[in-house]
Amino acid sequence: MAIELYWGSGSPFVWRVMLTLEVKGLAYESKLLEFSKGENKTPDYLRLNPRGKVPTLKDGDLVLYESLAIMAYLDRKYAEPPLFGKTPEQTGLIWRVISECESYLVSAGDKVVRPIFFGKDLEKIDEIQQAAQAIRQELKSLDERLTHENWLVGGQISAADITVFPLVQLLQRAASKEAAQPLHLGILPLAHNSPSIAKWVQRIEALPNYQRTYPPHWRSQP
Amino acid sequence: MAIELYWGSGSPFVWRVMLTLEVKGLAYESKLLEFSKGENKTPDYLRLNPRGKVPTLKDGDLVLYESLAIMAYLDRKYAEPPLFGKTPEQTGLIWRVISECESYLVSAGDKVVRPIFFGKDLEKIDEIQQAAQAIRQELKSLDERLTHENWLVGGQISAADITVFPLVQLLQRAASKEAAQPLHLGILPLAHNSPSIAKWVQRIEALPNYQRTYPPHWRSQP
Repeated sequence: MAIELYWGSGSPFVWRVMLTLEVKGLAYESKLLEFSKGENKTPDYLRLNPRGKVPTLKDGDLVLYESLAIMAYLDRKYAEPPLFGKTPEQTGLIWRVISECESYLVSAGDKVVRPIFFGKDLEKIDEIQQAAQAIRQELKSLDERLTHENWLVGGQISAADITVFPLVQLLQRAASKEAAQPLHLGILPLAHNSPSIAKWVQRIEALPNYQRTYPPHWRSQP
Repeated sequence: MAIELYWGSGSPFVWRVMLTLEVKGLAYESKLLEFSKGENKTPDYLRLNPRGKVPTLKDGDLVLYESLAIMAYLDRKYAEPPLFGKTPEQTGLIWRVISECESYLVSAGDKVVRPIFFGKDLEKIDEIQQAAQAIRQELKSLDERLTHENWLVGGQISAADITVFPLVQLLQRAASKEAAQPLHLGILPLAHNSPSIAKWVQRIEALPNYQRTYPPHWRSQP
């Protein structure tokens, strides 16, 4: 039975799972949900995922949601290449980078990205600036990690890279919007502000099948 | 070389690591930091953990922070008993419960606990009530999971239980404070509002060496 992935275009959490599936060479059936049509709130979908969020993965009898949980499951079930480290030390460092992303980058990112995309709370300048400062701090620390290494942990692509990457792409997209210009976020141009991250982004964009994971509506509405 | 744990009394994130160490029967050297004396901001400590937070674990040459990362490391290095599942499906479910805790319970908990403990923003009633509602929702879903099972996933204690438990204890402590009474949080008495969680709490409190993990200042200032 094929793996099924329920997803929405542009979700960084979906993107993580798609990259995991591609890096592991796993085929899957795409179930694209249109949020604007409420397809994530239908009774059928809420039976799979009571939170009505994406991604949700179905693999045989298992239904699983929460991006990191899906990644951990896939890594345990389909072991090659290992994405959570080859040694306990690597496992610890990979989860450290992931935890830091979840605790610091995701929440700060949300406070900047939402106002730009949805035009809401754009007047809360202090809050946005504070979040932008936190984002720059996290990007600086990631940039330092990548100065002498191609990947965040352990010399090869891991769940750490896959977790962080979609957030960086989302931040770049938000920062490029007209509504972001007065905010002076200090994120773009990435090659200037975070040169090692910029090269790492290119490395991930060069992965086989990367294009399959790219959010379709970002292509049609650049 | 002994494992060293840098910690502060009352941190739910520290408590997770202590429970992990005890469940795995690992001895460790306790390095208790007094936050009120700024011991988490000394140059020596910031070299171990640039964020100045707890917990930080030292094991031989490895220095690691972020509670979930430490738990994942310890589980990979000291495999028995396995805390992240015996099958890929269990691994996925355990990380799902953990991710839901981090995404929904921790942030909502913070919005309720901080005002109560520190007397700050207690006037933001709407925000606190909204967070309390989210907490009750998460507790309800955990309570349902525990109605027919002793443990959150897989029939034995796992990282899911260890991740969630300290938050439940923290919420109970906050809800018992005088400042919480006007807020009508709907958390206590736990045995009434979340009967299955209450029994699960007793199960964890009955673990060997549980008392060693109990925050010392909670004992002296109940």
